[in-house]
Amino acid sequence: MNHQEALTSYIAAFVSELYKNGVEDVVVSPGSRSTPMAMVMAEHPELRLHIHVDERSAAFFALGIAKASRKPVAILCTSGTAAANYFPAIVEANIARVPLIVLTADRPHELRDVGAPQAINQIHLYGSHVKWFVEMALPEKSTEIIRYARTVCARAASTALRSPAGPVHLNFPFREPLIPQLDRKDLFEPLERSNGYVRIQSGDLALSDGQYEELAESISAYKKGIIVCGSIESDRFAEAVTKLAKKLRFPILADPLSQLRSGKHDGTYIIDTYDTFLKNEDAKNHLKPDLIIRFGTMPVSKPLTIFLKENHDVQQFVVDGGGGWRDPGMVSSEMIYCEESLFCTAVIPFISQSEDTSYFAQWEEINQLTRSQLAAISELDVLSEGKLFYQIAEMLPDGATLFVGNSMPIRDLDTFFHFNNKSIRIMANRGANGIDGVISTALGAGTCSQPLYLVLGDLTFFHDLNGLIAAKQFGINIHILLINNNGGGIFSFLPQASHPKNFEKLFGTPLDLQFEHVVKMYGGQYELISDWSHFSAVLHSEMTGLRVTEVTTNRDRNIVEHRELWDAVSREIGRLLEGKC
Amino acid sequence: MNHQEALTSYIAAFVSELYKNGVEDVVVSPGSRSTPMAMVMAEHPELRLHIHVDERSAAFFALGIAKASRKPVAILCTSGTAAANYFPAIVEANIARVPLIVLTADRPHELRDVGAPQAINQIHLYGSHVKWFVEMALPEKSTEIIRYARTVCARAASTALRSPAGPVHLNFPFREPLIPQLDRKDLFEPLERSNGYVRIQSGDLALSDGQYEELAESISAYKKGIIVCGSIESDRFAEAVTKLAKKLRFPILADPLSQLRSGKHDGTYIIDTYDTFLKNEDAKNHLKPDLIIRFGTMPVSKPLTIFLKENHDVQQFVVDGGGGWRDPGMVSSEMIYCEESLFCTAVIPFISQSEDTSYFAQWEEINQLTRSQLAAISELDVLSEGKLFYQIAEMLPDGATLFVGNSMPIRDLDTFFHFNNKSIRIMANRGANGIDGVISTALGAGTCSQPLYLVLGDLTFFHDLNGLIAAKQFGINIHILLINNNGGGIFSFLPQASHPKNFEKLFGTPLDLQFEHVVKMYGGQYELISDWSHFSAVLHSEMTGLRVTEVTTNRDRNIVEHRELWDAVSREIGRLLEGKC
Repeated sequence: MNHQEALTSYIAAFVSELYKNGVEDVVVSPGSRSTPMAMVMAEHPELRLHIHVDERSAAFFALGIAKASRKPVAILCTSGTAAANYFPAIVEANIARVPLIVLTADRPHELRDVGAPQAINQIHLYGSHVKWFVEMALPEKSTEIIRYARTVCARAASTALRSPAGPVHLNFPFREPLIPQLDRKDLFEPLERSNGYVRIQSGDLALSDGQYEELAESISAYKKGIIVCGSIESDRFAEAVTKLAKKLRFPILADPLSQLRSGKHDGTYIIDTYDTFLKNEDAKNHLKPDLIIRFGTMPVSKPLTIFLKENHDVQQFVVDGGGGWRDPGMVSSEMIYCEESLFCTAVIPFISQSEDTSYFAQWEEINQLTRSQLAAISELDVLSEGKLFYQIAEMLPDGATLFVGNSMPIRDLDTFFHFNNKSIRIMANRGANGIDGVISTALGAGTCSQPLYLVLGDLTFFHDLNGLIAAKQFGINIHILLINNNGGGIFSFLPQASHPKNFEKLFGTPLDLQFEHVVKMYGGQYELISDWSHFSAVLHSEMTGLRVTEVTTNRDRNIVEHRELWDAVSREIGRLLEGKC
Repeated sequence: MNHQEALTSYIAAFVSELYKNGVEDVVVSPGSRSTPMAMVMAEHPELRLHIHVDERSAAFFALGIAKASRKPVAILCTSGTAAANYFPAIVEANIARVPLIVLTADRPHELRDVGAPQAINQIHLYGSHVKWFVEMALPEKSTEIIRYARTVCARAASTALRSPAGPVHLNFPFREPLIPQLDRKDLFEPLERSNGYVRIQSGDLALSDGQYEELAESISAYKKGIIVCGSIESDRFAEAVTKLAKKLRFPILADPLSQLRSGKHDGTYIIDTYDTFLKNEDAKNHLKPDLIIRFGTMPVSKPLTIFLKENHDVQQFVVDGGGGWRDPGMVSSEMIYCEESLFCTAVIPFISQSEDTSYFAQWEEINQLTRSQLAAISELDVLSEGKLFYQIAEMLPDGATLFVGNSMPIRDLDTFFHFNNKSIRIMANRGANGIDGVISTALGAGTCSQPLYLVLGDLTFFHDLNGLIAAKQFGINIHILLINNNGGGIFSFLPQASHPKNFEKLFGTPLDLQFEHVVKMYGGQYELISDWSHFSAVLHSEMTGLRVTEVTTNRDRNIVEHRELWDAVSREIGRLLEGKC
């Protein structure tokens, strides 16, 4: 049958090209219109297919694989609201610069906007939130259209992957009948050019030698420089930026997601408690820089964000290899579009070794003081959110991946997880900082990053309960540390907390759920922590499958614990700096 | 403080106008940027606030309230992916013509596209899937901007509600600080015009008398007319269309969602088993019409859709009060934009009473034959999906609402739920026919339609497990009949079922979940049905809270049962029509 042959050849060409362009994982949600693509993908000898019924979780799962593997991942669903369920993960992928190839099946043109079942307008469905949208041609077997399928696929993978990485969306109209011809031996054999149709060589943003030299001169003119590193994904960056810091004697304020808080790189210049001490006005005055060089996303820390904004009068260089505009404070003085590791490596030769460590020493002194004050958290007997992060920094095995929720966990991690020489990869969905899809993203990461730990609060856990099924279905090992303070703990830190009327209703939102039940449903192992020795024993025990360890905390006590520590740090800083005046 | 006063006055004006324009329910998902709107809403003495953590479920919950109450419902969330989670329900609301007012909080302009936390591009976030988008002005207290807030609110409610109803999206940029002044006594007191700012009077589409007369004459010229009614939401329609049918002696092919399958109206002309007998070629030839008048959405039944398409050579009138284009077969000969009940009522006076019942009798005879054959399902001892619908048609109490899933349940309902004089409201999400949000939509409907029964399959149940929390949090009574065939039963009816390789992996997708656990977590009552007498006892027992009754069925046996019945009907039709030749 001609239709069936065209359908099969066209899709097989596309699918075979996917793999040749670096896609190894496809997350498929079952559906009817997507039948031909799903069936052909299942025949591919190399592609890994993950079948996930809930498209929202499926897309986050794919996001997690792509984040961890730094390879483009494809997702496939049927027409209709299935595709709309992908939207949250696509938005996140776009801002977090994660390569996703979104494949949606659609009705053909004659069945659109005429009341046909499961037909919605999928043209530009994700609006400005994808890098590229293509309404695909109908399947044909002509050499030209086969070339088209292969070329578009190569372009899609390359567009998703090249900086700034992000999602692309290809919408495939398919006519019935939808069953491909799978008994063909030559299913994935190309008609021409066996090694992929077109290879795309894509460069990174690089300045000229003259620009590096000029910027190096600018930088060298300042004595009080700091380097701020937000989230950045690059194997080479840690070494490059620590070398630059050493040459300049500049402190590096390292966000948890900078991948500088843990690792085998030189930790000398890493400042890891700024989130606490930059709450203090005296410290901020004492440490006022004359130059700020920023890499990666805006940092998680609000005190640091405020510090950057308050220093609008000093030089601020923002280096962005993705060509974005990461400067909500409108304080940048130089916007430098250059791949970050390359920038560090390229300016170093133009900079002479600084011998003046006095400014760095000021940062180091306050950082040490703050670290020692924060260590008091370890003495708490009660179960505490802060201490949990202090503990796991010590307990996690070398090589672990630590995924954290976006609300209090990433902030407590920022406060209590200090530099260490283990290789711990810290991950979070900090593109749009959503409450959604955290379990699924972590599990996706878990397909290629093990051992995997996930720390999240009860609302975030609830939001993506469906995501847990991936652990069961795909046999992924994950140890979830569920901080259950029965509601939205972060709101206790916000101004509405001082307006008790309706606070619990609108913001506290206790769910009063016993999560043990749902963990059992997914075949997981559940444990409720009674005390810290129990916690330690559980964290050190062997991990297989889905494991949920619940730590019950108290929102009111939590804010008191945090405030007491911050006050103690402030007092000590006051004492220290008083002595200096 | 000037900022706070402006923020409060602006939002209070908007919120007060919401209520004056018919919005009684608001579904709020907790978040930070939406704080001022949420806090002001909570102060309103009349608005009902429903707090729902998962925005996807929250939006479907609102959709359910709006569907059942036929009033606009507002949803409110914070900035970022929260808003993206609304997308599936918005897409559904747009196609299903359900009035939703989507309120998203956003960062102000200076914090957009600059890497600020939780900031995504929310301008036209839902693209073509909303009827109206407004990027709201920043809060101000000037009389002009207060008038603006009130006017936009009135326009939003009216736009959402007027035919075709649908979702509208208002995006609110809010600057910090976000806390409104709630100690004001005059919070909701308008500066001018106390009864709402502008009242919008909106008409329905109506033809001229001349057009009614002409169409009535056309219609009267045909002897073999049928009326096809898809999903339609109007209290007046059942009476109007049954009167028209009686005058013309035309059979009414009544879709389950036409609200004609149950009710106190005259059932004489209702044909309720066409989905079965229109599979038969002899029946289709025997019953070939010369005129088809269609109201509402395209019917659920595929055999009927095919029948409509095959009759492309006869006159087909499509009446649509929403001015859409509900004709995937491209078979309409007259597209009539007129409110449906009005159309029926207005053409009747121009039509003389037909005395020729012979064509209707042909339909009636085959319908009776089919009904009696289908009744064989009631004799099955094993638990069967078909029999379940046959049983509940008998067992449901008068006044019940029956919500059904989109995959097999709506189809089995179509086959086995026959006309009765109880007032049973049948509901489903048949705009885009998604697997998503079914539990939440049903629970939303349950806030104003009780007693409430929901029949759905295990995959649909799984997809919206989070939705169950609304039953617990808001104390909504719902009896869920969970048909668990451990996977996607509908695919067994599709062509891929004859390609066993990868079928279970891609389409069967068994989840192997014991749902009892999750029902317990939500404080529900769970029962696994052992046999039909057990089923009957459970269905007749008193219902409070969340109740999940699981009926385990078998996908392979299910298709055999269906095929045997269809074959039996076909044989009997063959016998009947043979006698007539």
